[in-house]
Amino acid sequence: MEHKSSMANGGKPIRCRAAVCQKAGEALVMEEILVAPPMAYEVRIRIICTSLCHTDVKYWKMKDPPGIVPRILGHEAVGEVESVGDQVSEVKQGDIVIPTFLAECGECRDCTSNKSNICSEHPYKLSQGMPRCGTSRFTDLSGEVLHHFMFVSSFSEYTVVDVTHLIKLDPILISPDKACLLGCGVSTGVGAAWRTANLEKGSTVAIFGLGTVGLAVAQGARICGAERIIGIDINPDKLTMAKKCGVTEFVNSRSIGDKSVSQVIIEMTDGGADYCFECVGLSSLIKEAFACCRKGRGKTILFGVEDSVSVLGLKSIDVISQGKTVIGCIYGGLKPKSDIPTLIQWYLDKKWIGEL
Amino acid sequence: MEHKSSMANGGKPIRCRAAVCQKAGEALVMEEILVAPPMAYEVRIRIICTSLCHTDVKYWKMKDPPGIVPRILGHEAVGEVESVGDQVSEVKQGDIVIPTFLAECGECRDCTSNKSNICSEHPYKLSQGMPRCGTSRFTDLSGEVLHHFMFVSSFSEYTVVDVTHLIKLDPILISPDKACLLGCGVSTGVGAAWRTANLEKGSTVAIFGLGTVGLAVAQGARICGAERIIGIDINPDKLTMAKKCGVTEFVNSRSIGDKSVSQVIIEMTDGGADYCFECVGLSSLIKEAFACCRKGRGKTILFGVEDSVSVLGLKSIDVISQGKTVIGCIYGGLKPKSDIPTLIQWYLDKKWIGEL
Repeated sequence: MEHKSSMANGGKPIRCRAAVCQKAGEALVMEEILVAPPMAYEVRIRIICTSLCHTDVKYWKMKDPPGIVPRILGHEAVGEVESVGDQVSEVKQGDIVIPTFLAECGECRDCTSNKSNICSEHPYKLSQGMPRCGTSRFTDLSGEVLHHFMFVSSFSEYTVVDVTHLIKLDPILISPDKACLLGCGVSTGVGAAWRTANLEKGSTVAIFGLGTVGLAVAQGARICGAERIIGIDINPDKLTMAKKCGVTEFVNSRSIGDKSVSQVIIEMTDGGADYCFECVGLSSLIKEAFACCRKGRGKTILFGVEDSVSVLGLKSIDVISQGKTVIGCIYGGLKPKSDIPTLIQWYLDKKWIGEL
Repeated sequence: MEHKSSMANGGKPIRCRAAVCQKAGEALVMEEILVAPPMAYEVRIRIICTSLCHTDVKYWKMKDPPGIVPRILGHEAVGEVESVGDQVSEVKQGDIVIPTFLAECGECRDCTSNKSNICSEHPYKLSQGMPRCGTSRFTDLSGEVLHHFMFVSSFSEYTVVDVTHLIKLDPILISPDKACLLGCGVSTGVGAAWRTANLEKGSTVAIFGLGTVGLAVAQGARICGAERIIGIDINPDKLTMAKKCGVTEFVNSRSIGDKSVSQVIIEMTDGGADYCFECVGLSSLIKEAFACCRKGRGKTILFGVEDSVSVLGLKSIDVISQGKTVIGCIYGGLKPKSDIPTLIQWYLDKKWIGEL
């Protein structure tokens, strides 16, 4: 790879501040760091705003690999292009962009297929550096390397991102504080209903956990025309927001007596929901979601799990004899560059609320 | 339920011969039995021919519940209607029929949806009797009850089947010895490619195990336009038949040295197959099939498993971060009454071979 850098400001490192994870589970440390200029296919970005995703928290706590320190977390953001490396023509200095943990090269067998959102040229992987070479663009003032996170590392005033991981944005259409949620959580939820589940009008949906992802699933389900959207949570205070997002019925899983959640959902739906979304990330809840998805057609959509060793504890015979489907959802099945503009258009058309 | 029986021959029990499983794993015993007349919604059938499915063998060996003796196994057959019970207008005496373990009432929410093949009025279940009441129509000459199997029990000269479990057949179009394979194995395989996977033209397919189901998957995949159909088996003698059925490449899993099958398939396909069908029924092979289905779009289709307690040993994080799907396949996703005529038409059009 070419390691030259061509840009407006001369390709010098930038000294700026970042919130660095120096020790797993301990407070991030605000410190001065150096951000190297972008190499070929890379873009250096001034972060305008960033939000916190639960995945940041998860990796922040993680003591063992793939947890690693020192590292700059953060992967939901909007930024302004400060400079670009060689071979970058898609964006230029001053452009507003959303960096995404998933790439879209636009040319590979998977990017040109409508069946996949995992670019095979730049597949998603756990990495502590840049996607093409694995090296870092961050050092502290003593020269020690600071690791990247999910190809974004937005908890810094400046970061460097591969051009395949950038969505160009029209800032007149959507403000950065809204748009930064499209980098992960909200897109994942809306996309999960739209792309991953591809759910059809009239469907019955059960959503386990009404956090950012769960509420976004509700919005996506409503847009797709779901008839019943059942939200399940332990916190009844979420009901108002949930209704605003499209939830039509609420089950407080702490107020159902001796029944399991799946029993309650099966009774409510006379046999189970067409689509069950497990948005908490617990193996026990995956089982419950699977149990109450409808025989012969039910799909259980998974977003996360408590650790990297948990296995799907579903009985194989149940999956088979009940004709059910289990789908792993990454970024809502969305292709970042191709599909996020549609989500933005839906936002402009007020098809979904942007107050999340 | 009405327990009257109206029919041509007066509604008397029929004395005939059956191959009865008297003890798990021991030779079936040919003996005289009595087959009661059909009750409401039931049809008594003279079995013309029956084949042996591996599921019969599995339950024949089974010492503990849901294994049970004495029982009449067999669930792939063609028969002639001998008499019908009350409320039966769909078939009449002399009609040729395929009994199926799966029902299609044609009227419930699931039968009228194109998303499901599990009738919610008469869902598939493990039962030792008739679907509506659970009682048996078989006794031995001493009056002892003989149990049913999969709502068919075709290892008998006569059996009684619920009308929702019958497909009417035109015997001029297809001979009974071919048609009886449509009761389970062949339909399951062809249907799995067509309905369950819904695989599109140009797909790459990997089939683990080239038995009846695996070879039928190959035929279904060819009909759907798959470009590459990779068959995996330990027995190279299957190659000739496999090629005839559509397999384009063969992997002998005993001749790949230190590599795993999934490694070989990933290399052959530059990243994995679009659809992997596990047709052996082993948890270890489910893992291999899952491992070599393509990131971002790969679907692993499951047909069976070695026992009723095995769990899907796939890591949840892999399912999610690799955006993969696992689908349980029952009867190839086919609705018996609605879809089998299409399979017969394909047979008449010589789209697939009938020599299986």
